[in-house]
Amino acid sequence: MIVGIVGGGQLARMLALAGYPLGLNFVFLDPAPDACAAPLGEHLCGGYDDRALLARLAARADVLTYEFENVPEKSVEILSALGSIHPNANALAAARDRLAEKTLFRELEIPVPPFTAVDTRADLERAAVRIGLPAVLKTRTLGYDGKGQAVLRNAGDLDAAWARLGGARLILEGFVPFDREVSVIAVRGRTGETLFYPLSENTHQDGVLRLSVSRPGDPMQVLAENYARQLLDKLEYVGVLALELFQTGGTLLASEMAPRVHNSGHWTIEGAQTSQFENHLRAILGLPLGATAPVGYAAMVNFIGTLPDAGPVLAVPGVHWHAYGKRARPGRKLGHATLRADNRQDLRAGLDRLLALIEPNADPDPGKPPLARQFEVAAALGE
Amino acid sequence: MIVGIVGGGQLARMLALAGYPLGLNFVFLDPAPDACAAPLGEHLCGGYDDRALLARLAARADVLTYEFENVPEKSVEILSALGSIHPNANALAAARDRLAEKTLFRELEIPVPPFTAVDTRADLERAAVRIGLPAVLKTRTLGYDGKGQAVLRNAGDLDAAWARLGGARLILEGFVPFDREVSVIAVRGRTGETLFYPLSENTHQDGVLRLSVSRPGDPMQVLAENYARQLLDKLEYVGVLALELFQTGGTLLASEMAPRVHNSGHWTIEGAQTSQFENHLRAILGLPLGATAPVGYAAMVNFIGTLPDAGPVLAVPGVHWHAYGKRARPGRKLGHATLRADNRQDLRAGLDRLLALIEPNADPDPGKPPLARQFEVAAALGE
Repeated sequence: MIVGIVGGGQLARMLALAGYPLGLNFVFLDPAPDACAAPLGEHLCGGYDDRALLARLAARADVLTYEFENVPEKSVEILSALGSIHPNANALAAARDRLAEKTLFRELEIPVPPFTAVDTRADLERAAVRIGLPAVLKTRTLGYDGKGQAVLRNAGDLDAAWARLGGARLILEGFVPFDREVSVIAVRGRTGETLFYPLSENTHQDGVLRLSVSRPGDPMQVLAENYARQLLDKLEYVGVLALELFQTGGTLLASEMAPRVHNSGHWTIEGAQTSQFENHLRAILGLPLGATAPVGYAAMVNFIGTLPDAGPVLAVPGVHWHAYGKRARPGRKLGHATLRADNRQDLRAGLDRLLALIEPNADPDPGKPPLARQFEVAAALGE
Repeated sequence: MIVGIVGGGQLARMLALAGYPLGLNFVFLDPAPDACAAPLGEHLCGGYDDRALLARLAARADVLTYEFENVPEKSVEILSALGSIHPNANALAAARDRLAEKTLFRELEIPVPPFTAVDTRADLERAAVRIGLPAVLKTRTLGYDGKGQAVLRNAGDLDAAWARLGGARLILEGFVPFDREVSVIAVRGRTGETLFYPLSENTHQDGVLRLSVSRPGDPMQVLAENYARQLLDKLEYVGVLALELFQTGGTLLASEMAPRVHNSGHWTIEGAQTSQFENHLRAILGLPLGATAPVGYAAMVNFIGTLPDAGPVLAVPGVHWHAYGKRARPGRKLGHATLRADNRQDLRAGLDRLLALIEPNADPDPGKPPLARQFEVAAALGE
């Protein structure tokens, strides 16, 4: 069996690493000649809108999937007509556009921050009054890792934000003063069988995920699962979906969903019975899903902009190294480390060592508290 | 960093799957055009004695290793002169020849069954008297999975055995009426740091490994480790080594060693903190070794000759599927399943289900008791 993946980045690479043991082979469509999944399969090098390559991808593959939600609508349409693609076009459409996504959340009675569409400068003026400030102006499509966003703290910020983002279709969202950020990674099989991983507690810096910690037994688990299940069922979803949420008090507000394997689920490679990557493949192939139960406690730290020295990091007990084979560039996700431990105390101790080794190499905002401190705060809330 | 591997079979494939997360790339030398590791790296297709390809392998790779011990001596010599190869030529030489291997065991005072070299028909006659029957006549080199062996039960068997094996350099070994077979997987780093996995308890059928079960806390662990440590230190070994042993009462007799990752260590992918594959790579690269502590209890069942239907196997909780991407052929190792559980009871229950699914597809000797029964006996001894 050959799995065709639109995109050949680290998510495709980790899908392939999980897929070879299942007896699968892979073909990737990616415009980058040095796509980091390329050594693990056949690489079709070209644009995501290249009809000839899309046709070739569909012809080579027994089943199709993607590693990012910004696949052009037309390309999804072409692939859907040519082969079996999971998750389906509806799921992709809902996740691609922040307005459609939040409208779907609201329709399913999943709490969301206040939001409204902004297409003109006049819309923005009205929206700022209606939503109130602070608020976040975002492009409806193509945003990721905090890109395509502007924070509006007071009325004086509107001009600059409009100058930067105006022209694109936008959405204004109320700023949520959250206690912590969590995500739930869910997987739904072709028969509707649905499983959830323990919550991930996430720490972002400058819109980019830096740290995820698995939270087996988290008090918000059931609520998060309920929201994710409604989405999966509504979309007749097949595969892995990540739902990111803000917690304020006892409430969870949906932030966004990703119709794919997700950075906040990378810890599942070592920290769960079956990884999110293997389960995504099992789901789209119609195989029984693997158990999502935790194997101890796990945390994942992203390597951003630069890789730390491997020796000291690997000397921390329980650490696993995941390099993506990408060229170093400021702000680029180059890999991650997962720390797994049998109990929370060991996880905590190992994470202190790990963060001390990684932080000096990272390029965080100097105005922000270090990751270790942020983790301390989040952990106190989560326990 | 590029790792060059002599051999492109399933061991090379699993090394590569463990190596990509470490940021490695791979080049394989293998004469088979459909070598199953080939999709995971560059494949140099040609003989193990092809000087031009050996030179190319050494030129492409930063570090060299191999997935089988029968690499021609001359090739090892060539590669050793051209690059950094681990384990070293001495280790390979000792493991390649059963006489050298057993002589080394004896020199290190590691108990072995009685043995003697057999080069002529007259040698065989004398050896049968000296060792006593039953005994096993084996080729000194190139034997694996029970190939190149003949069991001598009485004097009448000598002619047939000689007709089959005579001409090659041989060894006659006393037949050991063992209680069970175990192996210890050890890894030694460049600095001499040495770690051991929990013992594997192994069940063979017709000389081929069928079942390995991890035995954390086994009473024979320390003794097995002592023997393996002597070998590793003596050989100034770098990488993973497997030592197979027969247990009779409270004694362990060394059967053979493999200077490489080993089938009886495949359960370490899910059942240990760090797999044997990752640790072999960490060792030869000079990285810190990863913890070898068990993660619960694990068992591995080989898929031989045919792959079972994946659906029912994957529906057994805790099962992981490992297909090697090889064409089916009677007696060929095509893959394995690993079962991991948090306790022995769950392992036992899962293994019963798993064996029931796999045995009907296997091609065991009808005269032998089924695997499940053999496991029962071995487990009773081990607990």
